[in-house]
Amino acid sequence: MPTPRITLTTDFGLLDHYVGVMKGVIATIAPDASVVDITHDIPPFMISEGAYVVGQTYPYFPAGTVHVAVVDPGVGSNRRAILLEAAGQFFVGPDNGVFSFVLSRADWRCRELNQERFFRPAVSATFHGRDIFAPVAAHLAAGAPPAELGPVIDNPYQLSLAKPVRAARRIWMGTVLKVDRFGNLITNFPAADFSELSQTPFRMTVGLSQVDYLTPNYAVAPIGEPVLIAGSAGFYEVIANQASAAKILGVGSGTPLELTIGG
Amino acid sequence: MPTPRITLTTDFGLLDHYVGVMKGVIATIAPDASVVDITHDIPPFMISEGAYVVGQTYPYFPAGTVHVAVVDPGVGSNRRAILLEAAGQFFVGPDNGVFSFVLSRADWRCRELNQERFFRPAVSATFHGRDIFAPVAAHLAAGAPPAELGPVIDNPYQLSLAKPVRAARRIWMGTVLKVDRFGNLITNFPAADFSELSQTPFRMTVGLSQVDYLTPNYAVAPIGEPVLIAGSAGFYEVIANQASAAKILGVGSGTPLELTIGG
Amino acid sequence: MPTPRITLTTDFGLLDHYVGVMKGVIATIAPDASVVDITHDIPPFMISEGAYVVGQTYPYFPAGTVHVAVVDPGVGSNRRAILLEAAGQFFVGPDNGVFSFVLSRADWRCRELNQERFFRPAVSATFHGRDIFAPVAAHLAAGAPPAELGPVIDNPYQLSLAKPVRAARRIWMGTVLKVDRFGNLITNFPAADFSELSQTPFRMTVGLSQVDYLTPNYAVAPIGEPVLIAGSAGFYEVIANQASAAKILGVGSGTPLELTIGG
Repeated sequence: MPTPRITLTTDFGLLDHYVGVMKGVIATIAPDASVVDITHDIPPFMISEGAYVVGQTYPYFPAGTVHVAVVDPGVGSNRRAILLEAAGQFFVGPDNGVFSFVLSRADWRCRELNQERFFRPAVSATFHGRDIFAPVAAHLAAGAPPAELGPVIDNPYQLSLAKPVRAARRIWMGTVLKVDRFGNLITNFPAADFSELSQTPFRMTVGLSQVDYLTPNYAVAPIGEPVLIAGSAGFYEVIANQASAAKILGVGSGTPLELTIGG
Repeated sequence: MPTPRITLTTDFGLLDHYVGVMKGVIATIAPDASVVDITHDIPPFMISEGAYVVGQTYPYFPAGTVHVAVVDPGVGSNRRAILLEAAGQFFVGPDNGVFSFVLSRADWRCRELNQERFFRPAVSATFHGRDIFAPVAAHLAAGAPPAELGPVIDNPYQLSLAKPVRAARRIWMGTVLKVDRFGNLITNFPAADFSELSQTPFRMTVGLSQVDYLTPNYAVAPIGEPVLIAGSAGFYEVIANQASAAKILGVGSGTPLELTIGG
Repeated sequence: MPTPRITLTTDFGLLDHYVGVMKGVIATIAPDASVVDITHDIPPFMISEGAYVVGQTYPYFPAGTVHVAVVDPGVGSNRRAILLEAAGQFFVGPDNGVFSFVLSRADWRCRELNQERFFRPAVSATFHGRDIFAPVAAHLAAGAPPAELGPVIDNPYQLSLAKPVRAARRIWMGTVLKVDRFGNLITNFPAADFSELSQTPFRMTVGLSQVDYLTPNYAVAPIGEPVLIAGSAGFYEVIANQASAAKILGVGSGTPLELTIGG
């Protein structure tokens, strides 16, 4: 029997007891489950960043992992709670788009979590992480069959994933998906789809500035100057060696980008 | 044999190696123990916030869990080190009030930790988390009988827990127990004791402002306006939908509150 | 069979998914390994602070622990990846000095990690934590023999560890190794080597100020005034009771110190 494993991605932060309480609920239901913190520092209510983090993380986990994501401005309203099965793994959280990158796969099945016997006895209006998502994840980790958790639904909510849009023959419009801790700007330009940047002159407009150099790695990049790199997430990133590109350029998550390819 | 489990609540932060060292000490004594971080971001020396976090967390953990709390401005002085047994669980830390919410139960037993064979061989003057509390917790998790850890004492230190005080027939004085990461102000008004607020007009004075609306959930609350909600901790909280009530009102932990009930 | 244990020390922070991804890689290769976060808040690219944290932490962990340290400004360049065996434990990371305090031991053996079958199939230019160090650590935890991981090398890179230097008969020059979360300044003066400070007048110059009092513990130190204490790391620290010595003195990591012993 493999180790049951549950990951947690939330906007709860680590200043409070909320994450600890979720772990207590899990420990009570599934004492052998291994709980892995992904991050609890999603900016409050930023569903798109939560979706990005979940989408970046789950491919590295083994089959059977249960991923819990709680970025949930609609808690207590009538938004649904869902269970997604995809890629041999499970995803538990609110039906608000936080699993959008999982839903861009072809192989998902979605259930509405409506079986209260898998919840905590009293469900609060403000803390479904504790009262619904943690106990459901723990029951799954402890072997509860998904089919018992709720009926299949076919319309989970999906954010329109920002993808670059062609604006002219040589011009694409995109966006910054996320600013990471180092101030790197993760764009929505997949490196595989724009591989010509390594051979062709280009110009990416970021805020009031332009980036026109693609570096093969950090070490050879000029220190403190924003350049493009093919990042580990599969997207181009605007980085600055030993500095924060976000600070230098004065931009953040959601900033529009314009890429012009060719001289 | 159930998984031995140890939780950690400290003001050590995560910038340093202190928490990692405690985990190493635990791993050496009790290699099978599962260590759960509650928070390490209690504001330095704020015993009352540590007490609040422990009090909010332990009810969700299974029997036998060992809760370690280290918020310890008196480390190295003659304040005692204690073990509390309550609610089928264990609590290990300094005798300075950090377990005040546990001591408000009827079922506790307290021991003074004075058996050096359960400590690290050399006890420093500044890091009892490493030298006393982590090893004692690990020995407990590994099966050491509580009675061997020290003699029963009947006077552990307890903070006078802030409870609302009646100031006039319709007026109660209270306080803000904690500001959470979202800027919600957790008051010491238990929702169960003041349930009439859902039917009766009321006015809560918070700093220079007044709050007079009780919302059933976040989603229907007006955006950016401070209102009252029955929070998941069992207390009323002053919240602002998609905003920080603490910032809007300019107040923090310890702020006095005045509640007037009725027209 | 003991629990395989892997510690993580990085400058990745916890805002992003990077640490979670490393844990997924480990879980896939070594599902029973217990992963312990030391800190992910090493200041970006500060190899010396990473080295200090690793050096302070590993002595408390049991034999067989695998310590992964990723503070890696040279990722993607031709700096080597290494495995150190020392003190019955393993150390995996870049060859840039991050294991300098381990290399100051006599008993180390170093290998260059060059066996790609222990890496992830595709190694990126920017994320060796995921692609090399996490999988190598997991294979070690799962029982891979060190000798298969790469050839022995005898010249791993070591930072010149800052040690106090004698400038005159009664005068020593030193430095601040680290500022901890409380604003304590951890100096490179080992308390054991300068034990006379408890009996002899002394004067330590820190920035524009001077410290001349050695306190036996925090509790009896004057509140808010910088004094010296023999810290839990074995070094003298400049602390201020219930305040930040770093803020009061306006200094940080790397600040030079001058110690004059005697009247």
